[in-house]
Amino acid sequence: MCELLGMSANVPTDIRFSFAGLARRGGGVGPHRDGWGVAFYEGRAARAFHDPEPAASSDIARFVSAHPIKSRTVIAHIRQANRGPVALANTHPFSRELWGRVWTFAHNGQLRGVKSLPLDFYAPVGATDSEYAFCWMLDQLRARFPSLPAARDLDREILQLSARLARMGVFNMLLSDSRTLYAFCGKRLSCLTRRAPFGQASLIDDDRKVNFAEETGPNDCVTVVATGPLTSDETWTAIKPGALLALRDGKIAASLFIEPPGGEKPARGKRSPPC
Amino acid sequence: MCELLGMSANVPTDIRFSFAGLARRGGGVGPHRDGWGVAFYEGRAARAFHDPEPAASSDIARFVSAHPIKSRTVIAHIRQANRGPVALANTHPFSRELWGRVWTFAHNGQLRGVKSLPLDFYAPVGATDSEYAFCWMLDQLRARFPSLPAARDLDREILQLSARLARMGVFNMLLSDSRTLYAFCGKRLSCLTRRAPFGQASLIDDDRKVNFAEETGPNDCVTVVATGPLTSDETWTAIKPGALLALRDGKIAASLFIEPPGGEKPARGKRSPPC
Repeated sequence: MCELLGMSANVPTDIRFSFAGLARRGGGVGPHRDGWGVAFYEGRAARAFHDPEPAASSDIARFVSAHPIKSRTVIAHIRQANRGPVALANTHPFSRELWGRVWTFAHNGQLRGVKSLPLDFYAPVGATDSEYAFCWMLDQLRARFPSLPAARDLDREILQLSARLARMGVFNMLLSDSRTLYAFCGKRLSCLTRRAPFGQASLIDDDRKVNFAEETGPNDCVTVVATGPLTSDETWTAIKPGALLALRDGKIAASLFIEPPGGEKPARGKRSPPC
Repeated sequence: MCELLGMSANVPTDIRFSFAGLARRGGGVGPHRDGWGVAFYEGRAARAFHDPEPAASSDIARFVSAHPIKSRTVIAHIRQANRGPVALANTHPFSRELWGRVWTFAHNGQLRGVKSLPLDFYAPVGATDSEYAFCWMLDQLRARFPSLPAARDLDREILQLSARLARMGVFNMLLSDSRTLYAFCGKRLSCLTRRAPFGQASLIDDDRKVNFAEETGPNDCVTVVATGPLTSDETWTAIKPGALLALRDGKIAASLFIEPPGGEKPARGKRSPPC
């Protein structure tokens, strides 16, 4: 399993604390030695860093951990290769342009048979199932909407596409178009919203602590999504398998569920309790 | 005018020496304070660094200058904004995927009326003429070829597209699909091929020197293209306006010329003397 980390915030926010916890799992305390990447949005564009080296020993990861790059939307990933060799082209997050926006995608899990899905416009550069699935999702969105649709319509379409991919295996993913950070939980994903009154947090995999009260303003709101909890003294919530969170401005703007196969049908787009 | 730097090599090569000369022009000795970027190819993918900060004072530029990232194809750019505000989305090199390859593009000059050209598939994320021109070129290539064509056919098509853009203003550009580094000279571009016997080189804008004999193997071949000469003790050749160089494996694989308007017609695709 790879490890995912995503952040949505209502003000440009420094993610170094959480990233440091993730990077330690990249060949440090975890088995994820096969590269890492992170994308920081600035407007509709994103600044990305990738390295096929283990995050725990990567010069670029050390640089990113040491320099504050503030952003309102961040997607990070560390990789344990299962499909596709260790190479830059196979390193998440992947990105493509659609409707004049940079889309960014990171995934953990495996998808059986995903490469039998037809691709029209986008083509993978590397060999992973994940990049293939991303190309397929963007192809479907492009075919469905000629330009950026209303957020609600896009949320629903991304839920449907995620549901189709989740039927092919394990599909935990983070996706952003700069406006929204989508987090789909196929099997394992947790989240946490930080807002006033802010307290202290301690990384599980490191001896770092931060007092968010000293680092934040009273109206700041930040939601962090990760494969598993990164801190030991905050209350993380496990996202329900089959749920898609749409995070905007640091808040859970929508929480949608796929219909359980053969079971009763909860309303699509139903709001969940806060993450 | 912005400053361009490109490199094609037959072995993964450290471009820090040339990049240091370029970065000094980014707000140090030059007027190019409006951001910079560099893309390093690894296979069909590219690792890119961008910063809207001046290169001369950018933490990321210092990191890139200090860490050897070896690559066979590199495109770098420092910006003096004329169209589009200083922002990440307006920072070259731009990139898009076509035929399962990452394409990268950097430009200097201005193009009057470029935004009246029709776009079909690719859309700009930022506001520059340059990114618009890049989107148009890729749209045209996609419409002309369903998959990656033979290098010779692609060379000719890129010459035609460059010729059309060059009629709209000043079009000095670097473009790569990972296989070839294209350099089109609209007005000002110089190049230099380094091969054995290697000698010493001294940067014009810095006190740095390098003895390439100590840094290279006997079969290494590297061609560097830049807006103007970067070193004082090597013989740079000015590329003829209207010429497109196609660099592969560090060598000038093809040198093509556009037909002068209303003049005699030199054969398209005619070989030039070595750069």
